[in-house]
Amino acid sequence: MTAPLAGYVILDLTHVLAGPFCTLTLADMGAQVIKVEQPRTGDDTRTFPPFKDGKSAYFAAINHGKKSIALNLKADADRAIFERLLARADVVVENYRPGVMERLGYGWDDLHAAFPRLVYGAVSGFGHTGPDAKRPAYDMVVQARGGVMSITGEKDRDPVRVGASIGDIVAGMYLTQGILAALLDRDRSGVGRKIDVAMLDSQLAILEHAVALTTVTGKAPGPSGARHPSITPFETFHASDGLFVIAAGNDRLFEKLCIALNLPISDDPRFTTNPERCKHARLLKRLIEAVTLENTRAYWISRLTAAGIPTGPIQDVAQVLKDPQILARNMVVDVLDKNGRQAFKAAGNPIKMTDAPDPTTRGPAPDLDGNRGEILRWLDGR
Amino acid sequence: MTAPLAGYVILDLTHVLAGPFCTLTLADMGAQVIKVEQPRTGDDTRTFPPFKDGKSAYFAAINHGKKSIALNLKADADRAIFERLLARADVVVENYRPGVMERLGYGWDDLHAAFPRLVYGAVSGFGHTGPDAKRPAYDMVVQARGGVMSITGEKDRDPVRVGASIGDIVAGMYLTQGILAALLDRDRSGVGRKIDVAMLDSQLAILEHAVALTTVTGKAPGPSGARHPSITPFETFHASDGLFVIAAGNDRLFEKLCIALNLPISDDPRFTTNPERCKHARLLKRLIEAVTLENTRAYWISRLTAAGIPTGPIQDVAQVLKDPQILARNMVVDVLDKNGRQAFKAAGNPIKMTDAPDPTTRGPAPDLDGNRGEILRWLDGR
Repeated sequence: MTAPLAGYVILDLTHVLAGPFCTLTLADMGAQVIKVEQPRTGDDTRTFPPFKDGKSAYFAAINHGKKSIALNLKADADRAIFERLLARADVVVENYRPGVMERLGYGWDDLHAAFPRLVYGAVSGFGHTGPDAKRPAYDMVVQARGGVMSITGEKDRDPVRVGASIGDIVAGMYLTQGILAALLDRDRSGVGRKIDVAMLDSQLAILEHAVALTTVTGKAPGPSGARHPSITPFETFHASDGLFVIAAGNDRLFEKLCIALNLPISDDPRFTTNPERCKHARLLKRLIEAVTLENTRAYWISRLTAAGIPTGPIQDVAQVLKDPQILARNMVVDVLDKNGRQAFKAAGNPIKMTDAPDPTTRGPAPDLDGNRGEILRWLDGR
Repeated sequence: MTAPLAGYVILDLTHVLAGPFCTLTLADMGAQVIKVEQPRTGDDTRTFPPFKDGKSAYFAAINHGKKSIALNLKADADRAIFERLLARADVVVENYRPGVMERLGYGWDDLHAAFPRLVYGAVSGFGHTGPDAKRPAYDMVVQARGGVMSITGEKDRDPVRVGASIGDIVAGMYLTQGILAALLDRDRSGVGRKIDVAMLDSQLAILEHAVALTTVTGKAPGPSGARHPSITPFETFHASDGLFVIAAGNDRLFEKLCIALNLPISDDPRFTTNPERCKHARLLKRLIEAVTLENTRAYWISRLTAAGIPTGPIQDVAQVLKDPQILARNMVVDVLDKNGRQAFKAAGNPIKMTDAPDPTTRGPAPDLDGNRGEILRWLDGR
């Protein structure tokens, strides 16, 4: 068993979410991640609630298994340590505002000249180029400006935010992809590259259907509640005890659904094709709910699953964390404290891979500067 | 200029969204993607609206730049071609229901024995293990079961779907990461691996804050509309002509905001720290809107931006596609038809990289079986 990224060293200057989420995945795949933090304060999220025993569960969720050293990159002694780390690293990752690294003397041009094999990964609100490069951004700003809010929420009501911080997270994931691709190239060519990912760009990249629709029809889609905008039936339905999901994504599944519901309408010309079903979606929803309201969610999920129809519950996060499939996949792991005791729960690694370890625990989220001695000894080859 | 994945060959058995989204990113980074489709029908999304000149814009958005060959993997002649392709490929990717590849004789064990260097990437609704491995899933099913719907929408109203298909997309992105990590390892070890990504697992992996909150407090969060659940002010506000976003993520930004709004409340003990601001969020929202309603969105976005406060508009997708920053970043590209004419618009590559081409156009979305001759000639070394 060997983790696929075993042996790679990531020097991680990132804070809050987009950058740390990127390096979390690299750590979960076996890279050694050394988090370089501001002395005294460290990563902002160390102060984010909720707390347990004085430690931020939020920080732990995104930073477990990383090492921490606090360095003042404006002080000579600490700069010397940082440069020794750069010489040993495969990748440096940062999510400062564009220009910060240059002012420190660690911009891409300087680093590439001094460490030609080093891969440099940057994630920022708007990217390192373009008229708004220097503007600050948080998740909410790019969810709103990038279009995803405009298609999320109920029709004729104000748009809502996606509950998960996908403005940060999707950008962090693209940065991970760019870093891995650059490493593949570097391992052949010997030459590193800089990757520049913008949170705003990343929002556009995930809009798929909405981009196609807007560019072909000239009209931007709005929010459509819990419905898929162009597949029917593909939404939530009321059972006697609450809502559940039916996703009959094609004609064959719709026929099976009609049989499972004892609803003899699959030959009705208003419902035989998906475009017709979309046109008569309101009527179809009522016909289906007139049946599903007669029994419970559990009854229908079981019955429709047996008929091969994609269906399922709407779970809150407490239910997700106990879901038998989630547990069978080792998707809830224990984050240990430095004494090896279970301190937090966190999401596991969704990238399951043959011959790679998939441990049920994770090393601790580091204390600020908590691995200084160990890191300096490693630099000295001791 | 060389794309980082130049020279890698991806054999792509995927359809609809999660798998094709994974291979789209690989293609955008320079890999050669050969899409193996069912004869006659091909990828389901070829029939997804909207259409332009009889071609699906949806299919084009996710499949541009790939090649297509139609193969019946139950027919001997086509199996022979497929096996010659396997021998030349670095990666095979599939998003069938678990068990389909095994029944074809192309499960991981068979492929790994015959092609030890081949990396095998799979994405499915629930993964290849666990009690629900064989259940069908669509995006909507995992958005609901995986928890993200439970935190998206307005308080005290029914949950809504995220407008983008993040159930598919995030899983596709994790698969891309797994494939790249496995290739890095393979290029050193000579031995391929199988990657098994579940859409459900991937939803849990992006919940971050909600997982921390639920595991520490024992209580699952609900939806919070357009507000961040634990940072204040970090939401939408009314100006005289509509909504815009302010994201003052820390105390310093809140002070700057109060100055920019001429709102002398930053010393009020109800607002000096983020936990206090969260407690008095309803009051604070009204105090801020009493000011912001006096002028337009454009006025406030310009004024707050000048003061260094993260802010911005809520844009629909048509506005996003014309956003100067998006255009400056080459994030809207032209997909050409096979005669080199502009056929569709699509999202560009958000992974910007030094020395990698970032073209303003993309090769055509392939016709079904449209590259058979070319692919067979390549296999023959002609």
